[in-house]
Amino acid sequence: MLIVGERINTFKKSVMKAYEDKDAAFIRREVLAQAEAGAEVIDLNAGSSLAVEPENMRWAVEIAQDTVELPLSIDSPNPATIKAGFAACRNPQAAWVNSVTLERERLEELLPLAREHGCPLVALCRDEGAINRSGAERVEVAKRIVDVVDRAGISLDKLYLDTLIEPVSVHPEAALVSLDTLRGLRQALPDIKTIISLSGVSFGLPGRRLLHRIYLPILMYEKLDAVFLDPLDAALMAAIKGAEAVLACDEFCMQYITAHREGSIDG
Amino acid sequence: MLIVGERINTFKKSVMKAYEDKDAAFIRREVLAQAEAGAEVIDLNAGSSLAVEPENMRWAVEIAQDTVELPLSIDSPNPATIKAGFAACRNPQAAWVNSVTLERERLEELLPLAREHGCPLVALCRDEGAINRSGAERVEVAKRIVDVVDRAGISLDKLYLDTLIEPVSVHPEAALVSLDTLRGLRQALPDIKTIISLSGVSFGLPGRRLLHRIYLPILMYEKLDAVFLDPLDAALMAAIKGAEAVLACDEFCMQYITAHREGSIDG
Repeated sequence: MLIVGERINTFKKSVMKAYEDKDAAFIRREVLAQAEAGAEVIDLNAGSSLAVEPENMRWAVEIAQDTVELPLSIDSPNPATIKAGFAACRNPQAAWVNSVTLERERLEELLPLAREHGCPLVALCRDEGAINRSGAERVEVAKRIVDVVDRAGISLDKLYLDTLIEPVSVHPEAALVSLDTLRGLRQALPDIKTIISLSGVSFGLPGRRLLHRIYLPILMYEKLDAVFLDPLDAALMAAIKGAEAVLACDEFCMQYITAHREGSIDG
Repeated sequence: MLIVGERINTFKKSVMKAYEDKDAAFIRREVLAQAEAGAEVIDLNAGSSLAVEPENMRWAVEIAQDTVELPLSIDSPNPATIKAGFAACRNPQAAWVNSVTLERERLEELLPLAREHGCPLVALCRDEGAINRSGAERVEVAKRIVDVVDRAGISLDKLYLDTLIEPVSVHPEAALVSLDTLRGLRQALPDIKTIISLSGVSFGLPGRRLLHRIYLPILMYEKLDAVFLDPLDAALMAAIKGAEAVLACDEFCMQYITAHREGSIDG
Protein backbone atom coordinates (compact mmCIF):
# COMPACT_ATOMS: atom_id res chain seq x y z
CA MET A 1 0.00 0.00 0.00
CA LEU A 2 1.66 3.19 -1.23
CA ILE A 3 0.74 6.09 1.05
CA VAL A 4 0.40 9.64 -0.26
CA GLY A 5 0.14 12.20 2.55
CA GLU A 6 -2.88 14.42 1.92
CA ARG A 7 -2.57 16.98 4.70
CA ILE A 8 -1.31 19.97 2.69
CA ASN A 9 -4.65 20.71 1.10
CA THR A 10 -6.52 24.00 1.09
CA PHE A 11 -9.77 22.30 2.07
CA LYS A 12 -8.24 22.79 5.53
CA LYS A 13 -8.42 26.34 6.88
CA SER A 14 -5.02 26.08 8.58
CA VAL A 15 -3.39 25.25 5.24
CA MET A 16 -5.23 28.04 3.46
CA LYS A 17 -3.98 30.46 6.11
CA ALA A 18 -0.40 29.21 5.77
CA TYR A 19 -0.52 30.03 2.05
CA GLU A 20 -1.98 33.48 2.76
CA ASP A 21 0.65 34.25 5.40
CA LYS A 22 3.45 32.53 3.48
CA ASP A 23 4.11 30.55 6.66
CA ALA A 24 6.99 28.36 5.47
CA ALA A 25 7.48 26.78 8.92
CA PHE A 26 3.92 25.43 8.82
CA ILE A 27 4.44 23.76 5.44
CA ARG A 28 7.81 22.40 6.54
CA ARG A 29 6.30 20.88 9.70
CA GLU A 30 3.44 19.28 7.79
CA VAL A 31 5.81 17.79 5.20
CA LEU A 32 8.18 16.42 7.80
CA ALA A 33 5.50 15.01 10.10
CA GLN A 34 3.89 13.13 7.22
CA ALA A 35 7.23 11.73 6.08
CA GLU A 36 8.04 10.57 9.61
CA ALA A 37 4.60 8.96 9.93
CA GLY A 38 5.15 6.84 6.82
CA ALA A 39 4.04 8.86 3.79
CA GLU A 40 6.00 7.86 0.70
CA VAL A 41 4.73 10.73 -1.44
CA ILE A 42 3.67 14.21 -0.24
CA ASP A 43 0.65 15.75 -1.93
CA LEU A 44 0.70 19.53 -2.40
CA ASN A 45 -2.55 21.33 -3.08
CA ALA A 46 -2.59 25.12 -3.26
CA GLY A 47 -6.26 25.99 -3.69
CA SER A 48 -8.08 26.60 -6.91
CA SER A 49 -7.92 30.34 -7.55
CA LEU A 50 -5.93 30.81 -10.74
CA ALA A 51 -4.93 34.29 -9.60
CA VAL A 52 -2.64 33.03 -6.80
CA GLU A 53 -2.53 29.23 -7.08
CA PRO A 54 0.41 28.79 -9.48
CA GLU A 55 2.62 31.05 -7.39
CA ASN A 56 1.50 29.37 -4.14
CA MET A 57 2.28 25.96 -5.62
CA ARG A 58 5.75 27.07 -6.70
CA TRP A 59 6.35 28.36 -3.16
CA ALA A 60 5.14 25.11 -1.53
CA VAL A 61 7.22 22.93 -3.86
CA GLU A 62 10.37 24.84 -2.99
CA ILE A 63 9.77 24.44 0.75
CA ALA A 64 8.81 20.77 0.50
CA GLN A 65 11.79 19.73 -1.59
CA ASP A 66 14.12 21.53 0.81
CA THR A 67 12.55 19.53 3.67
CA VAL A 68 12.44 15.92 2.44
CA GLU A 69 13.67 13.79 -0.43
CA LEU A 70 10.24 12.26 -1.08
CA PRO A 71 8.36 12.62 -4.38
CA LEU A 72 5.81 15.44 -4.45
CA SER A 73 2.32 15.07 -5.87
CA ILE A 74 1.42 18.32 -7.64
CA ASP A 75 -2.30 18.49 -7.07
CA SER A 76 -4.64 20.86 -8.87
CA PRO A 77 -7.57 20.88 -11.27
CA ASN A 78 -5.72 23.66 -13.11
CA PRO A 79 -3.05 22.64 -15.62
CA ALA A 80 -1.30 26.01 -15.22
CA THR A 81 -0.78 25.31 -11.51
CA ILE A 82 0.60 21.85 -12.14
CA LYS A 83 2.99 23.28 -14.72
CA ALA A 84 4.13 25.95 -12.26
CA GLY A 85 4.75 23.28 -9.62
CA PHE A 86 6.74 21.13 -12.04
CA ALA A 87 8.80 24.13 -13.14
CA ALA A 88 9.92 24.54 -9.53
CA CYS A 89 10.74 20.83 -9.02
CA ARG A 90 14.41 19.92 -8.87
CA ASN A 91 13.44 16.32 -9.58
CA PRO A 92 10.40 16.48 -11.89
CA GLN A 93 10.73 12.89 -13.09
CA ALA A 94 9.76 11.78 -9.55
CA ALA A 95 6.92 14.28 -9.08
CA TRP A 96 3.31 13.26 -9.70
CA VAL A 97 0.91 14.95 -12.10
CA ASN A 98 -2.32 15.00 -10.02
CA SER A 99 -4.61 14.91 -11.89
CA VAL A 100 -6.12 14.53 -15.34
CA THR A 101 -9.62 13.45 -16.38
CA LEU A 102 -10.99 12.96 -19.89
CA GLU A 103 -11.51 16.73 -20.11
CA ARG A 104 -9.77 17.85 -23.25
CA GLU A 105 -7.93 20.85 -21.77
CA ARG A 106 -6.36 18.88 -18.92
CA LEU A 107 -5.28 16.11 -21.28
CA GLU A 108 -3.81 18.46 -23.89
CA GLU A 109 -1.88 20.45 -21.32
CA LEU A 110 -0.73 17.68 -18.99
CA LEU A 111 -0.06 14.56 -21.04
CA PRO A 112 2.92 16.23 -22.76
CA LEU A 113 4.24 17.22 -19.32
CA ALA A 114 3.94 13.64 -18.00
CA ARG A 115 5.56 12.25 -21.15
CA GLU A 116 8.40 14.80 -21.02
CA HIS A 117 9.33 13.86 -17.44
CA GLY A 118 8.35 10.18 -17.51
CA CYS A 119 6.69 10.83 -14.15
CA PRO A 120 3.68 9.26 -12.37
CA LEU A 121 0.26 10.47 -13.47
CA VAL A 122 -3.06 10.28 -11.59
CA ALA A 123 -6.20 10.07 -13.72
CA LEU A 124 -9.68 10.33 -12.22
CA CYS A 125 -12.17 7.85 -13.72
CA ARG A 126 -14.44 10.60 -15.01
CA ASP A 127 -15.17 12.33 -18.27
CA GLU A 128 -16.47 15.82 -18.84
CA GLY A 129 -19.93 15.11 -17.41
CA ALA A 130 -21.19 14.29 -13.94
CA ILE A 131 -19.50 11.55 -11.88
CA ASN A 132 -20.76 8.16 -12.99
CA ARG A 133 -22.82 6.33 -10.41
CA SER A 134 -21.85 2.78 -11.38
CA GLY A 135 -18.58 0.90 -11.28
CA ALA A 136 -19.13 -0.41 -14.81
CA GLU A 137 -19.39 3.14 -16.19
CA ARG A 138 -16.25 4.26 -14.36
CA VAL A 139 -14.38 1.28 -15.79
CA GLU A 140 -15.50 2.28 -19.30
CA VAL A 141 -14.13 5.79 -18.70
CA ALA A 142 -10.91 4.25 -17.37
CA LYS A 143 -10.46 2.23 -20.56
CA ARG A 144 -10.75 5.42 -22.63
CA ILE A 145 -8.21 7.15 -20.35
CA VAL A 146 -5.76 4.27 -20.67
CA ASP A 147 -6.12 4.40 -24.43
CA VAL A 148 -5.45 8.17 -24.54
CA VAL A 149 -2.51 7.93 -22.14
CA ASP A 150 -1.01 5.02 -24.07
CA ARG A 151 -1.36 6.82 -27.41
CA ALA A 152 0.34 9.87 -25.86
CA GLY A 153 3.44 7.72 -25.45
CA ILE A 154 3.29 7.53 -21.66
CA SER A 155 4.33 4.26 -20.04
CA LEU A 156 1.23 2.71 -18.47
CA ASP A 157 3.19 1.65 -15.40
CA LYS A 158 3.30 5.36 -14.48
CA LEU A 159 -0.48 5.64 -14.44
CA TYR A 160 -2.66 5.57 -11.29
CA LEU A 161 -6.39 5.31 -11.95
CA ASP A 162 -8.41 7.04 -9.22
CA THR A 163 -11.71 5.14 -8.78
CA LEU A 164 -13.34 8.25 -7.23
CA ILE A 165 -15.35 8.12 -4.04
CA GLU A 166 -18.46 10.04 -3.04
CA PRO A 167 -19.68 10.41 0.56
CA VAL A 168 -21.89 7.63 1.92
CA SER A 169 -23.84 10.37 3.70
CA VAL A 170 -25.01 11.57 0.27
CA HIS A 171 -25.08 8.30 -1.70
CA PRO A 172 -25.46 5.23 0.55
CA GLU A 173 -23.98 2.97 -2.14
CA ALA A 174 -20.97 5.24 -2.76
CA ALA A 175 -18.38 3.09 -1.01
CA LEU A 176 -19.67 -0.04 -2.72
CA VAL A 177 -19.50 1.67 -6.13
CA SER A 178 -15.81 2.44 -5.61
CA LEU A 179 -15.21 -1.18 -4.59
CA ASP A 180 -17.08 -2.35 -7.71
CA THR A 181 -14.90 0.00 -9.75
CA LEU A 182 -11.73 -1.49 -8.24
CA ARG A 183 -12.88 -5.03 -8.95
CA GLY A 184 -13.85 -4.07 -12.48
CA LEU A 185 -10.52 -2.36 -13.12
CA ARG A 186 -8.63 -5.42 -11.90
CA GLN A 187 -10.51 -7.53 -14.41
CA ALA A 188 -10.45 -5.13 -17.37
CA LEU A 189 -7.06 -3.47 -16.79
CA PRO A 190 -5.15 -5.80 -14.44
CA ASP A 191 -1.76 -4.15 -14.97
CA ILE A 192 -2.83 -0.59 -14.23
CA LYS A 193 -2.39 0.71 -10.70
CA THR A 194 -5.27 2.15 -8.67
CA ILE A 195 -5.56 4.91 -6.09
CA ILE A 196 -8.32 6.52 -4.03
CA SER A 197 -8.72 9.57 -1.83
CA LEU A 198 -9.94 7.87 1.34
CA SER A 199 -11.47 10.76 3.24
CA GLY A 200 -14.09 11.39 0.55
CA VAL A 201 -16.10 8.46 1.87
CA SER A 202 -16.89 10.08 5.22
CA PHE A 203 -17.65 13.68 4.25
CA GLY A 204 -20.61 15.07 6.21
CA LEU A 205 -20.54 12.42 8.94
CA PRO A 206 -19.30 12.45 12.53
CA GLY A 207 -16.70 9.87 13.57
CA ARG A 208 -15.00 10.12 10.17
CA ARG A 209 -11.75 8.46 11.20
CA LEU A 210 -13.44 5.23 12.28
CA LEU A 211 -15.04 4.99 8.83
CA HIS A 212 -11.61 5.43 7.21
CA ARG A 213 -10.08 2.57 9.15
CA ILE A 214 -13.05 0.32 8.32
CA TYR A 215 -13.11 1.17 4.62
CA LEU A 216 -9.41 1.07 3.77
CA PRO A 217 -8.94 -2.63 4.67
CA ILE A 218 -11.88 -3.50 2.40
CA LEU A 219 -10.26 -1.47 -0.40
CA MET A 220 -7.01 -3.34 0.26
CA TYR A 221 -8.91 -6.65 0.01
CA GLU A 222 -9.95 -5.45 -3.46
CA LYS A 223 -6.26 -4.83 -4.26
CA LEU A 224 -6.06 -1.05 -4.12
CA ASP A 225 -2.43 -0.05 -4.83
CA ALA A 226 -2.14 3.44 -3.36
CA VAL A 227 -4.13 5.86 -1.22
CA PHE A 228 -4.32 9.54 -0.33
CA LEU A 229 -4.75 9.75 3.45
CA ASP A 230 -3.67 11.50 6.62
CA PRO A 231 -0.61 9.55 7.85
CA LEU A 232 -0.79 11.30 11.23
CA ASP A 233 -3.94 9.28 11.94
CA ALA A 234 -2.09 6.61 13.95
CA ALA A 235 -5.11 4.33 14.27
CA LEU A 236 -5.48 4.35 10.49
CA MET A 237 -1.82 3.50 9.98
CA ALA A 238 -2.24 0.63 12.48
CA ALA A 239 -5.28 -0.56 10.53
CA ILE A 240 -3.11 -0.81 7.41
CA LYS A 241 -0.68 -3.02 9.32
CA GLY A 242 -3.55 -5.18 10.55
CA ALA A 243 -5.02 -5.46 7.06
CA GLU A 244 -1.66 -6.51 5.63
CA ALA A 245 -1.43 -9.26 8.28
CA VAL A 246 -4.95 -10.51 7.59
CA LEU A 247 -4.65 -10.29 3.79
CA ALA A 248 -1.40 -12.28 3.52
CA CYS A 249 0.67 -9.20 2.60
CA ASP A 250 2.91 -9.46 5.68
CA GLU A 251 5.09 -12.56 5.78
CA PHE A 252 4.69 -14.40 9.11
CA CYS A 253 2.93 -11.20 10.32
CA MET A 254 6.38 -9.87 11.16
CA GLN A 255 5.58 -6.23 10.39
CA TYR A 256 2.47 -6.50 12.55
CA ILE A 257 4.29 -8.12 15.44
CA THR A 258 7.05 -5.49 15.24
CA ALA A 259 4.49 -2.66 15.18
CA HIS A 260 2.82 -4.17 18.25
CA ARG A 261 6.12 -4.42 20.07
CA GLU A 262 6.81 -0.77 19.26
CA GLY A 263 3.46 0.19 20.78
CA SER A 264 1.69 1.34 17.61
CA ILE A 265 -1.05 -1.34 17.70
CA ASP A 266 -3.98 -0.75 20.03
CA GLY A 267 -5.22 -4.31 20.06
CA MET B 1 -25.12 -8.96 11.44
CA LEU B 2 -26.41 -11.42 14.04
CA ILE B 3 -24.09 -11.44 17.06
CA VAL B 4 -23.54 -14.56 19.14
CA GLY B 5 -21.71 -13.83 22.40
CA GLU B 6 -18.77 -16.21 22.68
CA ARG B 7 -17.43 -15.38 26.14
CA ILE B 8 -18.69 -18.42 28.06
CA ASN B 9 -16.12 -20.77 26.62
CA THR B 10 -13.74 -23.02 28.51
CA PHE B 11 -10.81 -21.92 26.36
CA LYS B 12 -10.78 -19.13 28.97
CA LYS B 13 -9.35 -20.12 32.34
CA SER B 14 -11.81 -17.92 34.26
CA VAL B 15 -14.72 -19.78 32.66
CA MET B 16 -13.14 -23.16 33.34
CA LYS B 17 -12.74 -22.17 36.99
CA ALA B 18 -16.36 -21.01 37.20
CA TYR B 19 -17.49 -24.47 36.08
CA GLU B 20 -15.18 -26.14 38.60
CA ASP B 21 -16.38 -23.94 41.45
CA LYS B 22 -19.99 -23.94 40.27
CA ASP B 23 -19.79 -20.14 40.43
CA ALA B 24 -23.30 -19.28 39.25
CA ALA B 25 -22.79 -15.54 39.81
CA PHE B 26 -19.90 -15.57 37.30
CA ILE B 27 -22.02 -17.22 34.59
CA ARG B 28 -24.92 -14.89 35.32
CA ARG B 29 -22.68 -11.81 35.02
CA GLU B 30 -21.19 -13.00 31.74
CA VAL B 31 -24.60 -13.73 30.26
CA LEU B 32 -26.05 -10.40 31.32
CA ALA B 33 -23.06 -8.32 30.24
CA GLN B 34 -23.11 -9.87 26.76
CA ALA B 35 -26.85 -9.31 26.41
CA GLU B 36 -26.49 -5.68 27.44
CA ALA B 37 -23.60 -5.20 24.99
CA GLY B 38 -25.72 -6.36 22.06
CA ALA B 39 -25.44 -10.15 21.81
CA GLU B 40 -28.61 -11.63 20.32
CA VAL B 41 -27.67 -15.24 21.12
CA ILE B 42 -25.52 -16.47 24.05
CA ASP B 43 -23.10 -19.30 23.31
CA LEU B 44 -22.53 -21.81 26.12
CA ASN B 45 -19.48 -24.04 25.97
CA ALA B 46 -18.68 -26.34 28.89
CA GLY B 47 -15.37 -27.91 27.94
CA SER B 48 -14.84 -31.20 26.19
CA SER B 49 -14.43 -33.79 28.93
CA LEU B 50 -17.34 -36.18 28.60
CA ALA B 51 -17.05 -37.04 32.30
CA VAL B 52 -18.31 -33.64 33.47
CA GLU B 53 -19.31 -31.70 30.37
CA PRO B 54 -22.98 -32.75 30.04
CA GLU B 55 -23.69 -31.92 33.68
CA ASN B 56 -21.81 -28.61 33.43
CA MET B 57 -23.81 -27.71 30.33
CA ARG B 58 -27.10 -28.49 32.04
CA TRP B 59 -26.02 -26.28 34.96
CA ALA B 60 -24.99 -23.38 32.68
CA VAL B 61 -28.21 -23.59 30.65
CA GLU B 62 -30.32 -23.33 33.78
CA ILE B 63 -28.45 -20.25 34.99
CA ALA B 64 -28.45 -18.57 31.58
CA GLN B 65 -32.16 -19.02 30.93
CA ASP B 66 -32.96 -17.67 34.39
CA THR B 67 -30.87 -14.57 33.53
CA VAL B 68 -32.02 -13.53 30.04
CA GLU B 69 -34.68 -14.35 27.47
CA LEU B 70 -32.18 -14.70 24.63
CA PRO B 71 -31.66 -17.91 22.63
CA LEU B 72 -28.78 -20.08 23.88
CA SER B 73 -26.25 -21.72 21.57
CA ILE B 74 -25.44 -25.17 23.00
CA ASP B 75 -21.82 -25.55 21.95
CA SER B 76 -19.90 -28.81 22.08
CA PRO B 77 -18.18 -31.32 19.84
CA ASN B 78 -19.95 -34.00 21.91
CA PRO B 79 -23.53 -34.87 20.96
CA ALA B 80 -24.23 -36.10 24.51
CA THR B 81 -23.43 -32.65 25.89
CA ILE B 82 -25.65 -30.90 23.36
CA LYS B 83 -28.48 -33.27 24.22
CA ALA B 84 -28.01 -32.61 27.94
CA GLY B 85 -28.12 -28.86 27.28
CA PHE B 86 -31.29 -29.16 25.21
CA ALA B 87 -32.92 -31.32 27.86
CA ALA B 88 -32.46 -28.46 30.31
CA CYS B 89 -33.80 -25.77 27.93
CA ARG B 90 -37.23 -24.41 28.69
CA ASN B 91 -37.42 -23.13 25.11
CA PRO B 92 -35.51 -25.67 23.00
CA GLN B 93 -37.04 -24.52 19.71
CA ALA B 94 -35.06 -21.26 20.11
CA ALA B 95 -31.77 -22.89 21.21
CA TRP B 96 -29.00 -23.55 18.73
CA VAL B 97 -27.36 -26.91 18.02
CA ASN B 98 -23.67 -25.93 17.78
CA SER B 99 -22.34 -27.85 15.96
CA VAL B 100 -22.38 -30.67 13.45
CA THR B 101 -19.87 -31.60 10.77
CA LEU B 102 -20.08 -34.39 8.19
CA GLU B 103 -18.88 -36.82 10.87
CA ARG B 104 -21.42 -39.62 10.98
CA GLU B 105 -21.86 -39.76 14.76
CA ARG B 106 -22.61 -36.05 15.12
CA LEU B 107 -25.07 -36.14 12.25
CA GLU B 108 -26.88 -39.24 13.46
CA GLU B 109 -27.21 -37.93 16.99
CA LEU B 110 -27.95 -34.27 16.33
CA LEU B 111 -30.01 -33.99 13.15
CA PRO B 112 -32.97 -35.70 14.83
CA LEU B 113 -32.64 -33.26 17.73
CA ALA B 114 -32.62 -30.25 15.40
CA ARG B 115 -35.58 -31.63 13.46
CA GLU B 116 -37.54 -32.38 16.63
CA HIS B 117 -37.22 -28.82 17.92
CA GLY B 118 -37.14 -26.99 14.57
CA CYS B 119 -34.23 -25.02 16.02
CA PRO B 120 -31.19 -23.31 14.45
CA LEU B 121 -28.27 -25.58 13.58
CA VAL B 122 -24.61 -24.66 13.02
CA ALA B 123 -22.62 -26.87 10.63
CA LEU B 124 -18.87 -26.54 10.21
CA CYS B 125 -17.73 -26.83 6.57
CA ARG B 126 -15.62 -29.89 7.26
CA ASP B 127 -15.84 -33.62 6.83
CA GLU B 128 -14.15 -36.35 8.83
CA GLY B 129 -10.64 -35.50 7.63
CA ALA B 130 -8.36 -32.52 8.14
CA ILE B 131 -9.68 -29.00 7.56
CA ASN B 132 -9.66 -28.20 3.85
CA ARG B 133 -7.23 -25.53 2.81
CA SER B 134 -9.19 -24.08 -0.10
CA GLY B 135 -12.49 -22.27 -0.29
CA ALA B 136 -13.63 -24.45 -3.18
CA GLU B 137 -13.16 -27.62 -1.11
CA ARG B 138 -15.05 -26.14 1.84
CA VAL B 139 -17.91 -25.19 -0.48
CA GLU B 140 -18.04 -28.78 -1.75
CA VAL B 141 -18.30 -30.02 1.84
CA ALA B 142 -21.01 -27.43 2.47
CA LYS B 143 -23.04 -28.73 -0.45
CA ARG B 144 -22.90 -32.23 1.01
CA ILE B 145 -23.96 -30.91 4.42
CA VAL B 146 -26.89 -29.01 2.93
CA ASP B 147 -27.97 -32.16 1.14
CA VAL B 148 -27.83 -34.26 4.33
CA VAL B 149 -29.62 -31.60 6.39
CA ASP B 150 -32.30 -31.18 3.76
CA ARG B 151 -32.88 -34.94 3.49
CA ALA B 152 -33.17 -35.09 7.29
CA GLY B 153 -36.27 -32.93 6.98
CA ILE B 154 -34.73 -29.83 8.54
CA SER B 155 -35.74 -26.46 7.12
CA LEU B 156 -32.68 -24.95 5.43
CA ASP B 157 -33.51 -21.51 6.78
CA LYS B 158 -32.48 -22.87 10.20
CA LEU B 159 -28.97 -23.76 8.99
CA TYR B 160 -25.84 -21.66 9.56
CA LEU B 161 -22.79 -22.80 7.61
CA ASP B 162 -19.57 -22.02 9.49
CA THR B 163 -16.84 -21.27 6.91
CA LEU B 164 -14.13 -22.14 9.49
CA ILE B 165 -11.13 -19.93 10.12
CA GLU B 166 -7.55 -20.88 10.90
CA PRO B 167 -5.01 -18.47 12.42
CA VAL B 168 -3.06 -16.27 9.99
CA SER B 169 -0.07 -16.81 12.27
CA VAL B 170 -0.08 -20.47 11.16
CA HIS B 171 -1.43 -20.19 7.60
CA PRO B 172 -0.88 -16.74 6.06
CA GLU B 173 -3.72 -17.28 3.57
CA ALA B 174 -6.16 -18.45 6.25
CA ALA B 175 -8.29 -15.31 6.35
CA LEU B 176 -8.44 -15.15 2.56
CA VAL B 177 -9.53 -18.80 2.39
CA SER B 178 -12.49 -18.07 4.67
CA LEU B 179 -13.40 -15.07 2.49
CA ASP B 180 -13.15 -17.28 -0.61
CA THR B 181 -15.42 -19.78 1.12
CA LEU B 182 -18.00 -17.08 1.87
CA ARG B 183 -17.97 -15.86 -1.72
CA GLY B 184 -18.24 -19.43 -2.99
CA LEU B 185 -21.13 -20.20 -0.64
CA ARG B 186 -22.99 -17.11 -1.79
CA GLN B 187 -22.71 -18.29 -5.38
CA ALA B 188 -23.39 -22.00 -4.80
CA LEU B 189 -25.88 -21.78 -1.92
CA PRO B 190 -27.18 -18.20 -1.94
CA ASP B 191 -30.10 -18.87 0.42
CA ILE B 192 -28.09 -20.52 3.21
CA LYS B 193 -26.89 -18.35 6.06
CA THR B 194 -23.22 -18.15 7.06
CA ILE B 195 -21.40 -17.72 10.36
CA ILE B 196 -17.79 -17.56 11.54
CA SER B 197 -15.96 -17.63 14.83
CA LEU B 198 -14.03 -14.40 14.50
CA SER B 199 -11.31 -14.85 17.11
CA GLY B 200 -9.84 -17.88 15.35
CA VAL B 201 -8.14 -15.57 12.86
CA SER B 202 -5.80 -14.00 15.41
CA PHE B 203 -4.74 -16.97 17.55
CA GLY B 204 -1.04 -16.81 18.43
CA LEU B 205 -0.62 -13.11 17.61
CA PRO B 206 -0.36 -10.01 19.80
CA GLY B 207 -2.84 -7.20 19.23
CA ARG B 208 -5.62 -9.68 18.48
CA ARG B 209 -8.50 -7.26 18.90
CA LEU B 210 -7.23 -4.92 16.19
CA LEU B 211 -7.16 -7.86 13.76
CA HIS B 212 -10.79 -8.69 14.67
CA ARG B 213 -12.00 -5.20 13.88
CA ILE B 214 -10.12 -5.21 10.56
CA TYR B 215 -11.30 -8.64 9.48
CA LEU B 216 -14.98 -8.49 10.43
CA PRO B 217 -15.82 -5.57 8.07
CA ILE B 218 -14.23 -7.51 5.18
CA LEU B 219 -16.33 -10.56 6.12
CA MET B 220 -19.39 -8.29 6.19
CA TYR B 221 -18.46 -7.02 2.71
CA GLU B 222 -18.61 -10.68 1.62
CA LYS B 223 -22.11 -10.88 3.18
CA LEU B 224 -21.45 -12.88 6.33
CA ASP B 225 -24.78 -13.28 8.18
CA ALA B 226 -23.74 -14.02 11.77
CA VAL B 227 -20.63 -14.10 13.93
CA PHE B 228 -19.35 -15.51 17.20
CA LEU B 229 -17.49 -12.70 18.98
CA ASP B 230 -16.89 -10.96 22.28
CA PRO B 231 -19.57 -8.25 22.47
CA LEU B 232 -17.75 -6.59 25.38
CA ASP B 233 -15.07 -5.52 22.88
CA ALA B 234 -16.53 -2.03 22.42
CA ALA B 235 -14.17 -1.09 19.59
CA LEU B 236 -15.27 -4.19 17.68
CA MET B 237 -18.94 -3.36 18.18
CA ALA B 238 -18.20 0.18 16.91
CA ALA B 239 -16.44 -1.33 13.87
CA ILE B 240 -19.64 -3.23 13.04
CA LYS B 241 -21.57 0.06 13.12
CA GLY B 242 -18.96 1.65 10.86
CA ALA B 243 -19.03 -1.26 8.43
CA GLU B 244 -22.81 -1.11 8.23
CA ALA B 245 -22.58 2.60 7.37
CA VAL B 246 -19.93 2.04 4.70
CA LEU B 247 -21.60 -1.04 3.21
CA ALA B 248 -25.03 0.56 2.74
CA CYS B 249 -26.61 -1.51 5.55
CA ASP B 250 -27.51 1.55 7.64
CA GLU B 251 -30.07 3.84 6.05
CA PHE B 252 -28.83 7.45 5.96
CA CYS B 253 -26.12 6.24 8.42
CA MET B 254 -28.64 6.88 11.20
CA GLN B 255 -27.45 4.02 13.44
CA TYR B 256 -23.88 5.25 13.05
CA ILE B 257 -24.75 8.86 13.78
CA THR B 258 -26.77 7.77 16.84
CA ALA B 259 -23.91 5.59 18.11
CA HIS B 260 -21.55 8.55 17.69
CA ARG B 261 -23.88 10.82 19.60
CA GLU B 262 -24.05 8.25 22.41
CA GLY B 263 -20.26 8.22 22.60
CA SER B 264 -19.62 4.68 21.36
CA ILE B 265 -17.69 5.71 18.21
CA ASP B 266 -14.03 6.64 18.65
CA GLY B 267 -13.66 8.40 15.33
